[in-house]
Amino acid sequence: MAAESETGDCFGWAARDTSGFLSPYRFSRRAPRDDDVCLRITHCGVCYADVVWTRNFMNNTNYPVVPGHEIVGVVSSIGSVVSQLKIGDIVGVGTYVDSCRNCEYCNACKENKCVLGVTHTFNGIDKDGTVTKGGYSSYIVVHQRYCFKIPDGYPPESAAPLLCAGITVYAPMMHHKMNQPGKSLGVIGLGGLGHMAVKFGKAFGLKVIVFSTSASKKKEALEILGADEFVVSSDQQHMQSWSNSIDFIIDTASGPHPFDPYMSLLKTEGTLVLVGFPGEIRLQPASLNFGSKSISGSLVGGTKEIKEMLEFCASNKVYPKIEVIPVTYVNEALERLIKKDIQYRFVIDIEKSLK
Amino acid sequence: MAAESETGDCFGWAARDTSGFLSPYRFSRRAPRDDDVCLRITHCGVCYADVVWTRNFMNNTNYPVVPGHEIVGVVSSIGSVVSQLKIGDIVGVGTYVDSCRNCEYCNACKENKCVLGVTHTFNGIDKDGTVTKGGYSSYIVVHQRYCFKIPDGYPPESAAPLLCAGITVYAPMMHHKMNQPGKSLGVIGLGGLGHMAVKFGKAFGLKVIVFSTSASKKKEALEILGADEFVVSSDQQHMQSWSNSIDFIIDTASGPHPFDPYMSLLKTEGTLVLVGFPGEIRLQPASLNFGSKSISGSLVGGTKEIKEMLEFCASNKVYPKIEVIPVTYVNEALERLIKKDIQYRFVIDIEKSLK
Repeated sequence: MAAESETGDCFGWAARDTSGFLSPYRFSRRAPRDDDVCLRITHCGVCYADVVWTRNFMNNTNYPVVPGHEIVGVVSSIGSVVSQLKIGDIVGVGTYVDSCRNCEYCNACKENKCVLGVTHTFNGIDKDGTVTKGGYSSYIVVHQRYCFKIPDGYPPESAAPLLCAGITVYAPMMHHKMNQPGKSLGVIGLGGLGHMAVKFGKAFGLKVIVFSTSASKKKEALEILGADEFVVSSDQQHMQSWSNSIDFIIDTASGPHPFDPYMSLLKTEGTLVLVGFPGEIRLQPASLNFGSKSISGSLVGGTKEIKEMLEFCASNKVYPKIEVIPVTYVNEALERLIKKDIQYRFVIDIEKSLK
Repeated sequence: MAAESETGDCFGWAARDTSGFLSPYRFSRRAPRDDDVCLRITHCGVCYADVVWTRNFMNNTNYPVVPGHEIVGVVSSIGSVVSQLKIGDIVGVGTYVDSCRNCEYCNACKENKCVLGVTHTFNGIDKDGTVTKGGYSSYIVVHQRYCFKIPDGYPPESAAPLLCAGITVYAPMMHHKMNQPGKSLGVIGLGGLGHMAVKFGKAFGLKVIVFSTSASKKKEALEILGADEFVVSSDQQHMQSWSNSIDFIIDTASGPHPFDPYMSLLKTEGTLVLVGFPGEIRLQPASLNFGSKSISGSLVGGTKEIKEMLEFCASNKVYPKIEVIPVTYVNEALERLIKKDIQYRFVIDIEKSLK
């Protein structure tokens, strides 16, 4: 893609090259269409995807790239056919801003599984051929289908991480029926995704066991997040004490790790759901065959699930634990994210800091 | 275990050491109890498990070992409380002859998933501490719960392979809802298990695609077994032509093979079910995450499913393709099984050949 001239009425922060260093950037958004919503962005969560694409880890970044796909803002204008939202509503936008709207999955509001693939919120190729730009910016124009009203009274800064971290764990937990009170849930990894899995698990009435490489997270997991048990994954004896006793495991780990030990903790017919990209999966067939166990994968969720999750969080007072930062801090925040030095999600206060 | 004296009224063939060579052997069965059925064995299928334990591949063989867990026979006597079977009935016995009968899985007639583990039909430790002996023998005594009436008119020699090969593919196909007419089923491997998966797939009204390392099996797969398509797994172009198009895959391969290429053939939300032990599973998380796909394992089935399968096979004229052999041929048969030189299951005619 040709570099664009840095003009336009939208102000954001962009990375220009594989250093991933972000700096102020001006650009244009498309003119709103009849079915579009225009949002004045107030908050944007900082996701590890922002590191991945600002630094071109996937070798498919179109620079300049404006990251951010955990977006919350206030509706500033709506197209003539927009019916579900009105000016002044607080609205979220997640990891995708379009899909084919015509396949079996779109028709079931599972747009994340669209057979033609979604249009990602940033570094995606929009239907008009332009490269999408994310939420580290002053405003965004999005088709109404991909905008979600934040329930009244839910803090907008807390809503931001729900749009990616939240739905990434909520959707597979619901799909795999991990919301049955009294059952047990293992959570591997205690970062942005893992801490939400613990919160959803407790809200669903589950017994939650956290597995982490780091003993330093124990106090936080038990006392602040409310997990029932904490297991350091290198403690083989402690691991084995949970053999065949856990109904589900959600694996949010971002680093490589063995799978056989976790499969052995699942009860018969248990499922481990992978929501991260922890490097190659290696395991013995016996880990699946004995006990008829499963490993499944999942990525974000559909619009129906996102709406349900937002209502669930509001009704059950489920809030991500966040650190609100000004946009001027974002480069340092991304460095800290790489070092996992964050409990558990940075949220940029776009409204107050983006000038 | 101490070697036993070779006396008793049960006559069979046993392996004495890790050569796995089988030869005639006399031993005793337990005295029948009130809830036992005594079968005069007429047929026994030859399963790869018979190779595994006669040659001590799992390092847990108690010699002498009498293999065989695809048993069909005629009821010669019944205990006083046996109600479901009568003398003269043709009855099958599969891979297990006991379980705890008290856990949630036993109570659901999923005895194969018993929390205390099943008692295997041969080389298992029975509740009285003796080592179980299998179907390469003149008669067997089994608790009525683990005996299955073969439907009237179903050939007993054809019923034998259903008790292991058949249920091993039937049970996961039913569990994972692979019996929906019009859907597509991939079958990896075309041996004893794979050919039954093709037959069940066609009986369920599925489009069946066979994946094999050997082009030599094409004619047989399409013309005799009735598969719809045949793909040589090393033909990358042919493999890729099936991308994202198959609803389910059942993996019966016994050798190591890559998993990512097969996962890419599954539709969104598709499942690959593993019923063999093909060596270490290695795959990329993206193969699961994109499209929310799953890999599951399975081993045989419960008594409820075995009864259902037998009725299904009788009603739908599903018959394994077998080669009936005398017991004197069994050592050669096991060698041919190792070389995969069999279409698709040896069945020993115990009645006519065991003297």
